[in-house]
Amino acid sequence: MAIEGWGDTVEARRSDSGVSISEIVSDYPIPKSPEANTASIATIEVLRELGNPGGVELRIKKGLPPGSGLGSSAASAAGGAFACNYLYGNKLTSQQLIDAATNAEESVSGRYADNTSAAILGSAVLVKSVSPVEIIRLGSINELKLIVVTPQIKVLTKEARATLPEKIALKDTVKAMANTSAVATAFLKDDYNLFVNSLEDVISEPIRKKLIPGYDRIKKAAIYSGADGFI
Amino acid sequence: MAIEGWGDTVEARRSDSGVSISEIVSDYPIPKSPEANTASIATIEVLRELGNPGGVELRIKKGLPPGSGLGSSAASAAGGAFACNYLYGNKLTSQQLIDAATNAEESVSGRYADNTSAAILGSAVLVKSVSPVEIIRLGSINELKLIVVTPQIKVLTKEARATLPEKIALKDTVKAMANTSAVATAFLKDDYNLFVNSLEDVISEPIRKKLIPGYDRIKKAAIYSGADGFI
Repeated sequence: MAIEGWGDTVEARRSDSGVSISEIVSDYPIPKSPEANTASIATIEVLRELGNPGGVELRIKKGLPPGSGLGSSAASAAGGAFACNYLYGNKLTSQQLIDAATNAEESVSGRYADNTSAAILGSAVLVKSVSPVEIIRLGSINELKLIVVTPQIKVLTKEARATLPEKIALKDTVKAMANTSAVATAFLKDDYNLFVNSLEDVISEPIRKKLIPGYDRIKKAAIYSGADGFI
Repeated sequence: MAIEGWGDTVEARRSDSGVSISEIVSDYPIPKSPEANTASIATIEVLRELGNPGGVELRIKKGLPPGSGLGSSAASAAGGAFACNYLYGNKLTSQQLIDAATNAEESVSGRYADNTSAAILGSAVLVKSVSPVEIIRLGSINELKLIVVTPQIKVLTKEARATLPEKIALKDTVKAMANTSAVATAFLKDDYNLFVNSLEDVISEPIRKKLIPGYDRIKKAAIYSGADGFI
């Protein structure tokens, strides 16, 4: 799901050849080497897809803190892919931009397309497959207002995903299938109540919440204060 | 999912009190005792919900073979619930009819609402929860044509469900979540291609197909003969 009003800013300027990062504005340490930053990796992918018409110099302003669970690396990747394509005539399709950003994301977080595709397409998306990347745009829920809490705890996507067990109880699988389908339906129908009533993650939350001290107390406080859901 | 053009026929007539079954037309042995037949059990439930305004005499013509995997018991339950409500002034909501039919279904097959709710509402439905029953109507896919093969093998729903393992590999769970959400999306968007491309059951099919001798060969033959999917 893409969130309005918060994100990275990526500026792209033409250069003779190659991809360089001339500046990163960030409160957090971010790799400046073009081979290690997802924005530049995605840019390299897009240039290759365009037949290498020239080079790109990037300036990146990080809006999203890395390791916050907000898809920081995917935001940079999507920004790099979009900016580079725009700079060289806007010739690629959204699908091609998602592919490029997802390949970049893969190099730091593993092959996941949820964050990259939402960043490119906007709204909520359903990732049907990652190899090849198959995405369905679901739409937005107008009434939905999100409050994002970012505690000062760094949990990398790669690490968070590694905490999940290899096997899931059948009954949890069935519940997860029902809830995920209901969330997708809620976005397709712009149905706030259905979304809120389906906001139950029986697979990741019980395990990943252990990475965030005080999670249960914060959840309780949010619900007590009037939040319709917390996840 | 409800299928057009095939189903049970349930006739209801007023009687002084109680629920009786005066006739069952069927090629298969079907319990005629009102406490053992889902049509009459659902009728009893509906009468109770209506405040027992009188009795009902049922005549049932079975169109669906029991143990065929087509939801035969649910079809009878839905028919009984619908007919009885209609007979006594059509006062209950669809939700109440689904509840009654699902309670009846529970007494023979376990608590599942997929078949009962599709039979009552028509089209494809998403079962969000069974206790309480929460159903989302998804819609139909106009282009969709089904060919139903019913080999002469009796597999009761109860037995088929019992063959599933208690734990599912995480990667299969993720795939099942994606495919189920994509199938729901396909019905919501009336998108035949998305439906066909999402018709992959990684959880039940590999196990349940063992109950049907020759399953893989029949599937291969169907796909070879031009079917877009087989499940």
